[in-house]
Amino acid sequence: MPGSEIENLIALIAKLPGLGPRSARRAALYLIKHRGTLLDPLAEAMRVASEVVKTCTTCGNLDTIDPCELCMDEERERGVVCVVEEVGDLWALERTRAFHGQYHVLGGALSALSGIRPEDLSIGKLLERVKGDGFHEVILALSATVEGQTTAHYIADLLMPLGISVTRLAHGVPMGGELHYLDDGTLTTAMRLRQKV
Amino acid sequence: MPGSEIENLIALIAKLPGLGPRSARRAALYLIKHRGTLLDPLAEAMRVASEVVKTCTTCGNLDTIDPCELCMDEERERGVVCVVEEVGDLWALERTRAFHGQYHVLGGALSALSGIRPEDLSIGKLLERVKGDGFHEVILALSATVEGQTTAHYIADLLMPLGISVTRLAHGVPMGGELHYLDDGTLTTAMRLRQKV
Repeated sequence: MPGSEIENLIALIAKLPGLGPRSARRAALYLIKHRGTLLDPLAEAMRVASEVVKTCTTCGNLDTIDPCELCMDEERERGVVCVVEEVGDLWALERTRAFHGQYHVLGGALSALSGIRPEDLSIGKLLERVKGDGFHEVILALSATVEGQTTAHYIADLLMPLGISVTRLAHGVPMGGELHYLDDGTLTTAMRLRQKV
Repeated sequence: MPGSEIENLIALIAKLPGLGPRSARRAALYLIKHRGTLLDPLAEAMRVASEVVKTCTTCGNLDTIDPCELCMDEERERGVVCVVEEVGDLWALERTRAFHGQYHVLGGALSALSGIRPEDLSIGKLLERVKGDGFHEVILALSATVEGQTTAHYIADLLMPLGISVTRLAHGVPMGGELHYLDDGTLTTAMRLRQKV
């Protein structure tokens, strides 16, 4: 029923993750209602982002400069690299401020189901970096899913012969997590890896 | 942590209804990952929508022409006008194909809490149209909320002296709705307004 320009806008918004046809319609109406304060600035922000954002050829992060700000930062530890699946994981880790080394974004995880093979990920590039940059530790910060753990094992097997320290994130009860809401897998792992207080 | 252009994009996406900071980050990453197929077309669709979409000066609908396609449609019934709060309500009714008359978008509902008074809505314009266009029925398709029903009563009081037929949408059990999930108010209304089978 709305004009084809609005229909087109709704159809494109509905392609965003987490938005269906209903919420896309709501968002489109909201955008048109807030033309000057949201629709125009957002259209412009998208145009600019499309123009200036690039993938860092070193680590795979997204930034307006290449190498990215993180790779160029002289104050970050040079000897440790943290391997993540996606840029979103890198951002999540950065928000915690718990890590101050280098990053490496794989671009996904191995998956027989989705047909993602080692050559589809930047694993070769990671090996190159590890051999060339003198890292003493590789932290595999991959998802605790079948795909993430398969990828972690695959990469660990490649790195072991290089005599480098390979670590992974700790598993256990999430902070603030209530035990009775936890899945059995996490609870079993937390019990098995219990620590002295 | 992401560059300021990406931060700006995320901040603007987060202003959309139904999106928080987390889902906005996810949407921004998804957009940048699908630059050619989504980010660029969406930016362009927004630019175009901002340029061409206007509010119909007759009914308040959004369209690229004024009067809008619905008001110009000679095949739609001229004698009945359906009053709705927002353009989204008009679209929802049009999708049902249950109504083929004219529309009138109020632009909201009366609300003492939000300070929305009769003069903030296009109620005066509605009276003008009713007096001038020879409508024989006004359907008040307003929300079954306190605000919607207050607005309906207010408008009905203004229309009654004109000797025009004023109706409202039926209340009752939603189609496909299970009784034990229904709120007490709806169930009470459905019982009170029960019909012969």
